[in-house]
Amino acid sequence: MDGHTLLDRIEALARISEHPDYLVRRFLTPEHRAANALVGDWMRAAGMAVRVDAIGNVIGRYPGTDSAAPALLIGSHLDTIADAGKFDGMLGVVSAIACVEDLARRGVRRPFPIEIVGFADEEGARFGATLLGSRALAGTFDRGVLSITDNAGVSMAAALRQFGLDPDTIGEAARRPGDYVYYLELHIEQGPVLEAQGLAVGCVTAINGALRYNVTITGEAGHAGTVPMGSRRDALAAAAACVLAVEERCGAEPDLVGTVGVIEAKPGVVNVVPGAARFTLDLRAPEDARRDRAAVDLLARFEAIAAARNVTISAVKTHEGAAVACAEPLMAAIDAAIAAERITPLRLPSGAGHDGMAVVAIAPIGMIFVRCKGGISHNPAESVTAADAETGAHVLLRVIEQLEP
Amino acid sequence: MDGHTLLDRIEALARISEHPDYLVRRFLTPEHRAANALVGDWMRAAGMAVRVDAIGNVIGRYPGTDSAAPALLIGSHLDTIADAGKFDGMLGVVSAIACVEDLARRGVRRPFPIEIVGFADEEGARFGATLLGSRALAGTFDRGVLSITDNAGVSMAAALRQFGLDPDTIGEAARRPGDYVYYLELHIEQGPVLEAQGLAVGCVTAINGALRYNVTITGEAGHAGTVPMGSRRDALAAAAACVLAVEERCGAEPDLVGTVGVIEAKPGVVNVVPGAARFTLDLRAPEDARRDRAAVDLLARFEAIAAARNVTISAVKTHEGAAVACAEPLMAAIDAAIAAERITPLRLPSGAGHDGMAVVAIAPIGMIFVRCKGGISHNPAESVTAADAETGAHVLLRVIEQLEP
Repeated sequence: MDGHTLLDRIEALARISEHPDYLVRRFLTPEHRAANALVGDWMRAAGMAVRVDAIGNVIGRYPGTDSAAPALLIGSHLDTIADAGKFDGMLGVVSAIACVEDLARRGVRRPFPIEIVGFADEEGARFGATLLGSRALAGTFDRGVLSITDNAGVSMAAALRQFGLDPDTIGEAARRPGDYVYYLELHIEQGPVLEAQGLAVGCVTAINGALRYNVTITGEAGHAGTVPMGSRRDALAAAAACVLAVEERCGAEPDLVGTVGVIEAKPGVVNVVPGAARFTLDLRAPEDARRDRAAVDLLARFEAIAAARNVTISAVKTHEGAAVACAEPLMAAIDAAIAAERITPLRLPSGAGHDGMAVVAIAPIGMIFVRCKGGISHNPAESVTAADAETGAHVLLRVIEQLEP
Repeated sequence: MDGHTLLDRIEALARISEHPDYLVRRFLTPEHRAANALVGDWMRAAGMAVRVDAIGNVIGRYPGTDSAAPALLIGSHLDTIADAGKFDGMLGVVSAIACVEDLARRGVRRPFPIEIVGFADEEGARFGATLLGSRALAGTFDRGVLSITDNAGVSMAAALRQFGLDPDTIGEAARRPGDYVYYLELHIEQGPVLEAQGLAVGCVTAINGALRYNVTITGEAGHAGTVPMGSRRDALAAAAACVLAVEERCGAEPDLVGTVGVIEAKPGVVNVVPGAARFTLDLRAPEDARRDRAAVDLLARFEAIAAARNVTISAVKTHEGAAVACAEPLMAAIDAAIAAERITPLRLPSGAGHDGMAVVAIAPIGMIFVRCKGGISHNPAESVTAADAETGAHVLLRVIEQLEP
């Protein structure tokens, strides 16, 4: 349970990369297999029985005093995006293994078995489709994704076969409601809240749902020198007003976030008044109802902006993911464990998606967030201190030891 | 002086195109030569002596009663952008020829010779550098542009040789101050002002100068789901505020225009808060001092927006062109000619650039604008009615006949 040991294991996993210059480890690659092998070795050393399931998740099982009781599932993912940080996913897996090592060293058994899972794919970096490992485990894997091909033209079905798995038997990875008492995940926050509050860890209340739109504005292109300001139907000026409306509306409500990440003016020439503009909108909140109210408000504001400027606007929904609430008993256990470490318990939503979004189909979920430097994630600059990693593992261990199913 | 005849000649020129599907006729192409030949035929039929000068301008000369007097130069350009309209440039040349035809038919001679010029390059569509024909005539041709290559890798010097010209003798195209009493150009407005006022023609006060900037904003990228609104340093939101500041500042002052034609958010991903943004600014006004005051104001507003949002901003000036005022006696003559056609004289600036910006180095300039449909230009939808073309030619003829040098 030493922070430096945790970080050594993070480094060992980070060395297993498809690319020599940066970390990338995608679903069903030789590096996926190598990471599973390394994690499996650590699990076995901690007294766990290890297997790789039908989708490529690596799973270790530590017996309880009642081997027939529903297990506590703990885990995170072992895949990464391209040019990834070292902590996103991996920290949860190595922390969980460290906890079981500690239990095994002390000969402690809980009334329930403990399973640790290293999910095969959460990021979706190879095939676009995300949460493939956790969806297979939750029995919600969509077989339609098997025909998706990667950048090299290899289908997911072919990649599974190359990995030694059988696309026809993915259903065997599915576990049933009742198999697990809870799913518990430790993960870096990937945001700045804990750092701003001076807290090493926090308790997640919900994984926010996301709504995404593509918004298109049509005005009238014109010569930048000849069309008077009062005669313009400038699509980009209308888009700019929409961007500020997103900021204003979302800033007025706690835990609601709205982002315009992409914008384009057409024709996109220095001396032409934009006749069209396009932007994306990403909206998230811990409760879908609040997020949906914000979407309705914003689309109405966009319409009003367009009407006032004599341009037209259309918004197409491109993604809708429901928010997933964490289970109150698990949150209470996490809060108590944090308090026992003499840290003020803070509850915060997760703006990013996590495997719990899939696992919730078969088990109530809970998450522990660990502070990361500057809130930076999905970036090689991702950073967690040894002290914070150690604190996170201690909190996780306390939850495991004190949980009353 | 019949509008339909003018439009027939516009159509004849529009058929001389490098591309079968749309109009494009660039500097020093076979189509340039063909357009010069057709225009030369019309000039000769109007009793003019015709030559092609050292840069490829076609010039016709109609004698005056005093052949030694400074000539009245009338003209416009014969080159086009890619996928051009048919009137931009050409209408000025065919209208001037129609006027001289009418004078010749009636045996009228003015005290001064009349020269009509079809400029070889105004748009700069082949080599990027603009106003090549009028600069050569004005003696301000920059020989540095001779090494510029077109998309096919042909240098301007080589293209001149292929056309039968000698890059070493371009200086022979230069005319001197005193050679011309005035330069007069009829051109489509390329904007919506005359149409909005219900006027077929108008008198140009100045060719606006332009200032251009590339503006870069640096904030901090972050996860769209995890960074609370209050912790963001969103570069695109700051850019949006700048876009609206441009619109507000320029809209508050007559004849000042400001355009953001290009915008980009980086990394430009739907679920990432933009850490950087870039946009262009194009500012124009009939007087440089007003334009420069607007630039100073806007750069200060940008700085204030950046400071309030904890982002940084930098603006690099990429272009500065001085405004060119039209000569008052010529404006008075144009106003009188418009009034004689029973049209309310309206004076308006030109937001677009024209050959007069170069010719002003050797002669005072004036311009007549003709209404175009919807203010649309640089587009195959460019449109002028036969009636308006005829009115424009009548105004031009009145100016020629009534001008007292």
